[in-house]
Amino acid sequence: MSTAVVVILLSTCLHALAETSDPKDQIGHYKRLRNELFQKELEMMLGSDIVLTDNEQKANDIIMELKNAVVDDGFTNPRHFNFSKHFFEYKDQLTDTMLYRILRDMPKGALLHAHDTGILAAEYVLNITYWDDLYVCRVEDEIEYLFSSNTPIKYCKTKWVPMKEVRYTSGNVKKFDSDLIRRFSIVVDDPAAEYPDINTVWSKFSNYFISTTPLLTYKPAWEFYFYETLKAAREEGIMYVEIRSVLPSLYDLNGEIYSSVDTAKSYKDVLDKFMKNFPDFYGAKLIYAPHRRVSDETVEQYVQIAQQIKRKMPDFLAGFDFVGQEDLGRPLAEIAPQVLELAAEMNFIFHAGETNWYGKSSDENIIDAIALGTKRIGHGYAITKHPALMEEVKNRDIALEVNVVSNAVLGLVADVRNHPLATMMARGLPVVLSSDDPGVWGADILTHDYYVAFVAVASRHADLRLLKKLAKNSLYYSTISDKDKALHEFEIRWTKFIGRLLKDKWSYF
Amino acid sequence: MSTAVVVILLSTCLHALAETSDPKDQIGHYKRLRNELFQKELEMMLGSDIVLTDNEQKANDIIMELKNAVVDDGFTNPRHFNFSKHFFEYKDQLTDTMLYRILRDMPKGALLHAHDTGILAAEYVLNITYWDDLYVCRVEDEIEYLFSSNTPIKYCKTKWVPMKEVRYTSGNVKKFDSDLIRRFSIVVDDPAAEYPDINTVWSKFSNYFISTTPLLTYKPAWEFYFYETLKAAREEGIMYVEIRSVLPSLYDLNGEIYSSVDTAKSYKDVLDKFMKNFPDFYGAKLIYAPHRRVSDETVEQYVQIAQQIKRKMPDFLAGFDFVGQEDLGRPLAEIAPQVLELAAEMNFIFHAGETNWYGKSSDENIIDAIALGTKRIGHGYAITKHPALMEEVKNRDIALEVNVVSNAVLGLVADVRNHPLATMMARGLPVVLSSDDPGVWGADILTHDYYVAFVAVASRHADLRLLKKLAKNSLYYSTISDKDKALHEFEIRWTKFIGRLLKDKWSYF
Repeated sequence: MSTAVVVILLSTCLHALAETSDPKDQIGHYKRLRNELFQKELEMMLGSDIVLTDNEQKANDIIMELKNAVVDDGFTNPRHFNFSKHFFEYKDQLTDTMLYRILRDMPKGALLHAHDTGILAAEYVLNITYWDDLYVCRVEDEIEYLFSSNTPIKYCKTKWVPMKEVRYTSGNVKKFDSDLIRRFSIVVDDPAAEYPDINTVWSKFSNYFISTTPLLTYKPAWEFYFYETLKAAREEGIMYVEIRSVLPSLYDLNGEIYSSVDTAKSYKDVLDKFMKNFPDFYGAKLIYAPHRRVSDETVEQYVQIAQQIKRKMPDFLAGFDFVGQEDLGRPLAEIAPQVLELAAEMNFIFHAGETNWYGKSSDENIIDAIALGTKRIGHGYAITKHPALMEEVKNRDIALEVNVVSNAVLGLVADVRNHPLATMMARGLPVVLSSDDPGVWGADILTHDYYVAFVAVASRHADLRLLKKLAKNSLYYSTISDKDKALHEFEIRWTKFIGRLLKDKWSYF
Repeated sequence: MSTAVVVILLSTCLHALAETSDPKDQIGHYKRLRNELFQKELEMMLGSDIVLTDNEQKANDIIMELKNAVVDDGFTNPRHFNFSKHFFEYKDQLTDTMLYRILRDMPKGALLHAHDTGILAAEYVLNITYWDDLYVCRVEDEIEYLFSSNTPIKYCKTKWVPMKEVRYTSGNVKKFDSDLIRRFSIVVDDPAAEYPDINTVWSKFSNYFISTTPLLTYKPAWEFYFYETLKAAREEGIMYVEIRSVLPSLYDLNGEIYSSVDTAKSYKDVLDKFMKNFPDFYGAKLIYAPHRRVSDETVEQYVQIAQQIKRKMPDFLAGFDFVGQEDLGRPLAEIAPQVLELAAEMNFIFHAGETNWYGKSSDENIIDAIALGTKRIGHGYAITKHPALMEEVKNRDIALEVNVVSNAVLGLVADVRNHPLATMMARGLPVVLSSDDPGVWGADILTHDYYVAFVAVASRHADLRLLKKLAKNSLYYSTISDKDKALHEFEIRWTKFIGRLLKDKWSYF
């Protein structure tokens, strides 16, 4: 062996020895590797590409102090930590906190996943029951509603009575109204007992829509509800809305019945009126999203309706989707071939993977949604069980419309720290936050979802950059017409918000 | 423009047109892409590299029919689906099924994550209370135990009475024993009410260990318990065990107190005896795993004990770890520097990330465990929130010791379909299944964990290949001395099991 070789071998050996047995170097090696992994994780997180200005950094300090107080207290006293409990137990406590008020004031960009008649609080529906010309047919515990200029001729097992008469002869108007309020939401005192499994809560949830339909499809009520939706969204820092609708037939006092296309037109008219009154709003579009649990013939009708709307209101239609509990409805694989012809004219924005089944049709709807070229995925809750699909949505830039509170309330996850959104954010997947049907569970339009996602689901390290990223994403992944202008305007409003927070944080107290 | 260019452009254009607007081709494109994604997912799944023989394929058909009957019924009737309920509600129903009996009989390789005094059912502990020389000191509802040749001189607020006397003057021995059984497990009728948060269940869990310690650290009881553990493991198709122990001081009737090293030696002696009686067993090793919630001085003592055991029983010591609730204990980052010197002599097999916090120390223990060069990770529940760490364990081939039932019972996850194991298996991460402390929650040594992971957590598509992979992994990632021989023997036993199943599947009915 040559001397050179011996020297090289010896040096390698000594180096290896030093690496493994010198305790000081071992600690150095461990610390370097630890830091490397830690930084790598931070860099992958959603929002890590956002660079904060000095002012934003100051605002971040305020926000993180509030967030981490909640997290650290929960870590020490899990009993204090609300987010491992049911949403109904803590939702009203949240609204009373400084962090909530800050998040409520924060510009949030767009609301991209919300179902038209489930957005507003029960009080709005109650308001409609005070309107003239409302009749009710009560059979045991069931109430049917109908607006009519005269006593309705529709069959009633008992008889149609004017709502006013029923209410004011009830003896206790307050109790009468609070009973109604309970019918106009799924909030209950003991959700564990009343909703023992997912189908029970979905059944109550579906009943909400069925029972409110005759109230809300009265054309003036329909238009009132949408107008108020836009107003409430605007008040929560939302500048643009994409609303999903099954587009039911509306009716009026003259007994006229309207088509789905008319219903879409009615939305467009309300929007035009709203934009006149609030020109700082950035508009709304419609996602036509009829029921998935229907026959092939009905799907064929949906296609025609979608095409008609596209022809009449090309800029107003954002896309096409199907709604209804995926576990019980028809899988995309079954109904997709029939709607594929729509792809040339409009976006698909499909619900997929709103389930905790794995390897069943509702789970695999995500594969179909992607293969069908969906622009975004509604929910995508199941996607973290599909590493190849996570790659795919990242590469194709398909946004996931995540609705944390909805998933918790509708029985997918008990402790929201187990919500797959954590993994999605950690991977830096294209995520937008939304709220699905916040009114049905007594949540605000979008703020509860931001609070829960930010404080309870995201990493303790996730900060203002995540919040800003989520808000910007909602515009970026929308189908808004002048996206650049909207994003620019968002920055202006964001800067103003940071200014307000820095000027007087105690105004949020 | 040259003709050639025009032709190329035209052809490209026509091709693009055909791609997007010919409905038949659109459907073809969608179906191809769908199939491609679906196959890609299947190929990434844990177990996809296993090729089944014809006989295994037949056995697979039997097993999948049983599995999918459960899954499909649950999909249609979520109320029937046990695995979204608490483990205590369904554990005894499982053992009475054909699939359970098949899984119980199936060779499972190694048991790699189990804590020595929490493995056997409460009945084993009860058995020990029937032994001679046991005294009890009862103060209100508390019972203290002590084996002693004479009435113990240790302080007792009331007085030490022979257990036999207490039991046979209790008036109702059956009730007396069933009261004891309740003390020797954490199983309760209404877990939601009794364990409202994670600390409550951990407190009851810790109390189990505290209260049984004086019973089980009686040297003959200690040796009996370990011998029976090995026997029970062997009966469930386990051929090799790595047991975690805090190595408490043992005592005997003569009042002698033994050191931790003696305790390790006592395990080694029991093992030697067991191997003589059951030469078909493949042995056991010790993971020395003392408490994490201790002072620096105590950690220093741990290091010395570990080194002494390594010197005296080099082949018996599999590695070093810390135990105790991670959220409350000291983070690895804090205690690691002190134990780093052990790395040259033994494996680290650290608990890490047994938590649903994200961005807190218990979560980030995973980073430290990896940076410290851990061979395997105990639990790693939180890892799916860390994409970079998932890459790291895959590249470094660090196995995750997953304990689904334990995580459910100890309050990390309610519906096991949300358990991160689903994501780990989907990603093909190196996973081994284990059971942590099955006796404490009335589970079998390993079969409940296999059942729950296979039927409720894994994809509906996951089949016998997953089961075989999990079993083989447990040997592959172990520190067993002659790994090749053990893996070869496993294949022989596996083939016999497949033979038994095919010969008479109804024997499992």
